[in-house]
Amino acid sequence: MTGSNTHPMRLVTIVVEALAQEPLTRMLTEEGARGYTLFEVQGQGATGARVGDIAEFGNIQVEAVVQPEVAVRILDRLEREFFPRFATVAFEAEVRVLRPEKF
Amino acid sequence: MTGSNTHPMRLVTIVVEALAQEPLTRMLTEEGARGYTLFEVQGQGATGARVGDIAEFGNIQVEAVVQPEVAVRILDRLEREFFPRFATVAFEAEVRVLRPEKF
Amino acid sequence: MTGSNTHPMRLVTIVVEALAQEPLTRMLTEEGARGYTLFEVQGQGATGARVGDIAEFGNIQVEAVVQPEVAVRILDRLEREFFPRFATVAFEAEVRVLRPEKF
Repeated sequence: MTGSNTHPMRLVTIVVEALAQEPLTRMLTEEGARGYTLFEVQGQGATGARVGDIAEFGNIQVEAVVQPEVAVRILDRLEREFFPRFATVAFEAEVRVLRPEKF
Repeated sequence: MTGSNTHPMRLVTIVVEALAQEPLTRMLTEEGARGYTLFEVQGQGATGARVGDIAEFGNIQVEAVVQPEVAVRILDRLEREFFPRFATVAFEAEVRVLRPEKF
Repeated sequence: MTGSNTHPMRLVTIVVEALAQEPLTRMLTEEGARGYTLFEVQGQGATGARVGDIAEFGNIQVEAVVQPEVAVRILDRLEREFFPRFATVAFEAEVRVLRPEKF
């Protein structure tokens, strides 16, 4: 992308029931995320009996910019520990950051 | 990107006047979005007389992760139905999701 | 990505102390951003004495979709003017927009 002073990193986004906030943010820190932002959101997931759907109220969206290898570990733990227990949506995207030494 | 267990998808983001919430979320569901998140945001659009600018207050941002072909249909309906009626900004990005069968 | 009617652009995201709101949004406008969205967020940055970490409360996330050359100027001014004064995280991503003439 643009500048010579931006560096490739991953933005990991997790939408989850608000009750998962504490274990989620603790896991992010354990796996090496240096920070995150947390939004209270309204959401509407698929209706019906699917495991992992998002409830209509009381969700949070948590975003963390991390090194690629940290993203791998976070996604792995989401898959193993959070998807079975909480209504969770998780995705990653490529971003370029200023001041990569902070991440 | 990272893991063998993530799958390419599109993140469609729409910033729009809050009064468009009901028709927008209904359209997303009709076109195949399995869920979305909704944020109340402050925004400031370009000043002046342009059609489609974002008003200073009372906007929402709606994000939906969808299959690529669903993104095409959503963007097409935004273009045809929402841009003429509401102050709307819409964009899409590539993301990789866990558990693609939910989308 | 998808449609013939979407156009490449940059999404610049800035997470910063709320007290930076006024100078930040003024700078975005000066550098050519036609609009932005602003979220109040909770965040948690790295602990310790690093300059530029995000405080636990009172942060905003500001997102602006801009032309690539505008993104370069915004990131440059963030680097020079905001990182020394405010706890700031900034990143950019590729997005594709509808109605590029608005940006």
